[in-house]
Amino acid sequence: MKIAALKEQILLKKSFLCVGLDIDLDKVPEHIKTTADPLFEFSKAIIDATAAFAVAYKPNIAFFETYGPDGMTSLKRVMDYLNENHPEIFTIADAKRGDIGNTATRYAKAYYETYNFDSITVAPYMGKDSVEPFLSFDEKYAIVLALTSNAGSSDFQTQEIGGQMLYEKVIQTSTQWEGSERLMYVVGATKASALKNIRTLIPNSFLLIPGVGAQGGSLTEVAENGLSDDVGLLVNSSRGIIYSSQGKDFAAAATIAAQDLQTQMQAILENKGFI
Amino acid sequence: MKIAALKEQILLKKSFLCVGLDIDLDKVPEHIKTTADPLFEFSKAIIDATAAFAVAYKPNIAFFETYGPDGMTSLKRVMDYLNENHPEIFTIADAKRGDIGNTATRYAKAYYETYNFDSITVAPYMGKDSVEPFLSFDEKYAIVLALTSNAGSSDFQTQEIGGQMLYEKVIQTSTQWEGSERLMYVVGATKASALKNIRTLIPNSFLLIPGVGAQGGSLTEVAENGLSDDVGLLVNSSRGIIYSSQGKDFAAAATIAAQDLQTQMQAILENKGFI
Repeated sequence: MKIAALKEQILLKKSFLCVGLDIDLDKVPEHIKTTADPLFEFSKAIIDATAAFAVAYKPNIAFFETYGPDGMTSLKRVMDYLNENHPEIFTIADAKRGDIGNTATRYAKAYYETYNFDSITVAPYMGKDSVEPFLSFDEKYAIVLALTSNAGSSDFQTQEIGGQMLYEKVIQTSTQWEGSERLMYVVGATKASALKNIRTLIPNSFLLIPGVGAQGGSLTEVAENGLSDDVGLLVNSSRGIIYSSQGKDFAAAATIAAQDLQTQMQAILENKGFI
Repeated sequence: MKIAALKEQILLKKSFLCVGLDIDLDKVPEHIKTTADPLFEFSKAIIDATAAFAVAYKPNIAFFETYGPDGMTSLKRVMDYLNENHPEIFTIADAKRGDIGNTATRYAKAYYETYNFDSITVAPYMGKDSVEPFLSFDEKYAIVLALTSNAGSSDFQTQEIGGQMLYEKVIQTSTQWEGSERLMYVVGATKASALKNIRTLIPNSFLLIPGVGAQGGSLTEVAENGLSDDVGLLVNSSRGIIYSSQGKDFAAAATIAAQDLQTQMQAILENKGFI
């Protein structure tokens, strides 16, 4: 989908919420666990329960891949369901792939075409020729890991490299790559203070922000520092929504949790004059 | 498998050859392309043709993943075939995964357990908590990207970070991680000169070396700089072996190409007094 359409959805739904489908079968309610395809059934129920409040979904590929070919069949069913019923919703393959040339193109085709995602998360360690192959597909986007919200981000990402931090170098370098208009970036919400700085490097790019809620990030701080002139944020919540209840009422609880975040986002968008 | 068993195989077969299964169906002979499962049939034929000369196989996961669930079924068949017929051979999932905590554990389980590989390649950008989850499985190994052979490796890997290059920092830092005895490293053969330096940081770790042959690396130079006291090298060749011929004689041609590399490796091992 085009970026313009994503922006339109954000203003229409008054939300920049992305729901992360990190589906841990150990945490799924019993009556779902016993279905033939619990990964799909749980995803479908969460999508039905939250689609009114979300502009994006982010299946975490590892949670499907771990079940082998059957898990990938479930992923395909989830994506078919999303694309058929909610073609207006932006989809993110949280796959963090990263390889070069022909191999990268195969990963891009897997997620952009075979599974029909709008975007995929990619790792930048191998440099330009590992990311550019993801940037040559029309209306498809690569979301590069810049500054992540985990403890290990201090091992390399925030180390100084030529007068700037590695993640800043990654961002700055990547803006020179062919097709960089199709780049977005992952920035952990636990580093909201870094967002202001990141916005000086990439004032207009979309940022995918995990780590709000369970991981300790503040939505207000993220918005304060991360909003671009045309919003430019997708804030992800996974556990806080999908495991809001582990009982029979899990879908209703997910609705409430998603609506709660949407309401906060609406207030921010109104406050900043977007709507 | 245990590292000791891998070393034993190297001395027994007089070879440290890894055959890369980067299976591009456009390059597969016509009579294979028309079978029900060309990814499996081609892999099986290559394995049968080269197993006498190789100690490791490295399926490139992207080339399976791009075909969706069916591609992963082919991968499972390849791994079942390898593990049933050649349990002595070391297997590497060239997946370059990298994510944190629970997600990393899912990737580890996917490749170590579901597909039953001995090892997986992983990307270090997210730091300690993205690699350690791969290091807690008995007799399973994580092969961290250190210095790769592509042009983009100069974007970040060879940039200076606190008086050393980023790849050196990655190697040095990773040796402190829990389970680091289960770490191996990817080092591109086009950087043979860097190998001597890398051996000062990790004198005993196994190194996976892609880039010999087609990508321009020299086997002699790699051996000269990269051999450890107990060999410690796996040198990968993909295209040079598997597409040695694209005709009906592709398997025979693969045998000859693999044997040629094995013969060179044997000479090196003899010359260095390993056998």
